[in-house]
Amino acid sequence: MPTIRQHPNDPALRSFVDVRKESHFPIQNLPFGIFSTASNPARRAGVAIGDWILDIALLEQAGLLAIHPDPVFSKTTLNDFLALGRPRWVAARERISELLRHDNPALQDNQPLRAQALHPMAEATLHLPAAVSGFSDFLLSKEHATNCIDIVGGAKDGKLWPNWHHLPMGYNSRASSVVVSGTPVRRPSGQLKGKTDEAPHFGVCAQLDFELETALVIGKPNEQGTPIALADVEEHAFGIVLLNDWSARDIQQWEAQPLGVFNSKNFATSISPWIVTLDALEPFRVAGPEQDPAPLPYLRQSGKCNIDAQVEAAIWPQGAARPSTVCRSELKTIYWSFAQQLVHQTSAGCNVQPGDLLGSGTVSSSAPGSLACLFEVTRDGSQRFELEQGGSRMYLEDGDQVTLTGWCQGDGYRVGFGHCEGRIIPAW
Amino acid sequence: MPTIRQHPNDPALRSFVDVRKESHFPIQNLPFGIFSTASNPARRAGVAIGDWILDIALLEQAGLLAIHPDPVFSKTTLNDFLALGRPRWVAARERISELLRHDNPALQDNQPLRAQALHPMAEATLHLPAAVSGFSDFLLSKEHATNCIDIVGGAKDGKLWPNWHHLPMGYNSRASSVVVSGTPVRRPSGQLKGKTDEAPHFGVCAQLDFELETALVIGKPNEQGTPIALADVEEHAFGIVLLNDWSARDIQQWEAQPLGVFNSKNFATSISPWIVTLDALEPFRVAGPEQDPAPLPYLRQSGKCNIDAQVEAAIWPQGAARPSTVCRSELKTIYWSFAQQLVHQTSAGCNVQPGDLLGSGTVSSSAPGSLACLFEVTRDGSQRFELEQGGSRMYLEDGDQVTLTGWCQGDGYRVGFGHCEGRIIPAW
Repeated sequence: MPTIRQHPNDPALRSFVDVRKESHFPIQNLPFGIFSTASNPARRAGVAIGDWILDIALLEQAGLLAIHPDPVFSKTTLNDFLALGRPRWVAARERISELLRHDNPALQDNQPLRAQALHPMAEATLHLPAAVSGFSDFLLSKEHATNCIDIVGGAKDGKLWPNWHHLPMGYNSRASSVVVSGTPVRRPSGQLKGKTDEAPHFGVCAQLDFELETALVIGKPNEQGTPIALADVEEHAFGIVLLNDWSARDIQQWEAQPLGVFNSKNFATSISPWIVTLDALEPFRVAGPEQDPAPLPYLRQSGKCNIDAQVEAAIWPQGAARPSTVCRSELKTIYWSFAQQLVHQTSAGCNVQPGDLLGSGTVSSSAPGSLACLFEVTRDGSQRFELEQGGSRMYLEDGDQVTLTGWCQGDGYRVGFGHCEGRIIPAW
Repeated sequence: MPTIRQHPNDPALRSFVDVRKESHFPIQNLPFGIFSTASNPARRAGVAIGDWILDIALLEQAGLLAIHPDPVFSKTTLNDFLALGRPRWVAARERISELLRHDNPALQDNQPLRAQALHPMAEATLHLPAAVSGFSDFLLSKEHATNCIDIVGGAKDGKLWPNWHHLPMGYNSRASSVVVSGTPVRRPSGQLKGKTDEAPHFGVCAQLDFELETALVIGKPNEQGTPIALADVEEHAFGIVLLNDWSARDIQQWEAQPLGVFNSKNFATSISPWIVTLDALEPFRVAGPEQDPAPLPYLRQSGKCNIDAQVEAAIWPQGAARPSTVCRSELKTIYWSFAQQLVHQTSAGCNVQPGDLLGSGTVSSSAPGSLACLFEVTRDGSQRFELEQGGSRMYLEDGDQVTLTGWCQGDGYRVGFGHCEGRIIPAW
């Protein structure tokens, strides 16, 4: 055992596992995921450390990681662990941090166990970290909301909808079609009606878009009928993933009024495989934008409500030598905080469950190059986006891979979300 | 064994279990549910027959009901059974029908087994029949759509939205808060803004409503990216339940534009405990309303697309001697069919899963007294609804129980959905 107890977020911590400086997964991060390997195809829980996965199901079996009387890490999803609540999440992360420290021999010097417990991430298969039973998506970015209104020409005096500044606006999206990064995304078909068409037809989506988002992952559920107060958010909110809210803009344009989006989003949503805990993000909390008018008391929050993370999106055309960055944005610019969205969603009594996702909505900022979907970048297909390697896009083409990434920059290290990737395959 | 094989829908079939003429659960129905009893608190599958529940988990264990090599009826939900697909659903219903026939001694004359296998429904606890992982709700009734537009004053020349006649309009609703009939429903609170208010406030919902709906229950899943064609719907669609889509109209009015309803519906949705199979409803299929313009080919359907069922809603104030009927409507009047809604929802590649619900939306018809929510009945609280026992309502009061019911009328018997009930308890 290390002789001095150190906080898992201490920037001075080092692991005996070698971690590159630009890695998203230093010992200060320790995100949770589900993986399998060629030698052991059973899905089980792991923690990312540098380019490796630490098999925490194995450590639990070996008696080195006793978080709960019942094993929770040998399951095919993290849901049982997520349901345990904050004290056990903190204990697990502290213990894993200890086991990975450069000055702790317990795992480091146990060669047989160490060889079994550390898997090269590049050789493993990553799965959905949690079974997602609920997925709601929000419109937390004022810049995205403003741009969308502006592009469709609905803005009157540049104003947002009258409710926008009073509540974190959200809608229920489709949980069944959430897939893990790396899963190919089939181009959807649907009802389409161009502005000059007399009637709709059924055809292949020609305006397939991505949306660069993050999502809050729920841990401990609340009881139906019992809202979560701001002060209790961190008992329920486990962590953050990247989320690509694939969107068929032409299907959306025809279907979305008056009930909202449906088939234009239901076909697939991709998330990154590693859930970065709110604990690991704690050092990177910052104040969000000023909220004016002041929110109603149940949403009134002060202090460091947002997370200072860089988020990026790139398109990698099939066969191209490298991706072409489309967007560099900042998560800290979202108007409504993660805590506010969870409080609002449960304020009428809705229950949330382990693994539920609450999407941020597209994270566009005001800086040049920070528009986080092609709808905004090309102004709904009216101006082409030039790829770095030549060629251009209005919307995504078959074979295009979209890669989202994001990280918090520490002093000499990064706490990152990894990647969320998906390649477009042709319509059936 | 009965000497003559008879179709489970044969009106001449009789059971050795006594079934009242007006019962919803004659031997021609045999709906599936999940129940527990005081003497055996384990949740398990049952089939309703008259005022009794047949314990099909017990029959499976006893070797009388072998549907699959692995037991499927001793689970806490029907999801495993639902996933098996139509041939096994048909086989199960045929076998259960045989076992309940008046001329089959197998169960009838096995007194110890019969005593163990038949439970008085009134003494059992009914649970959610399936774990609901997806819940989408639609707007299949043209009358309801037209009335809503009319009441909010948005109708231009009495026209519906331009897409309404081209697709069965739907949205994703909240699955986590679906509860079984009998579960009390807590009055929600939320952001409210009256028409003359300068700013919203957070308060208790004053315009709590019900919506009389039915829902399609999904059995066998489809693969993500692979739409379900009209010809294949019955491989995936298992049955029908009653659904009460509780709605907080004042929260809805403020939140619903532009993204759709959210907290105004997320707090609770009630369903009836017995899933009536499409097979049992087969004799009651009728043509739906003429669809003009003709739907696009993927939605084009002919023949008996709808179900001829009476559906009703009543309010039973606390302490009143009897309920007061609010609505008597006809399910056959819905413009879009269940098959069309499922085909449309999967047409862009969305996957559905066992236990998923696809709600019909409010089933209002054009006949007098057939408006299926208080929003329509009272024209959004502008004219009071007089209760039969005295008193009146604009919207629901604390202590009110809403009871939905519905049935298909055969010649001398009914194939019914039972009841979907929920009582309003005060806000927290």
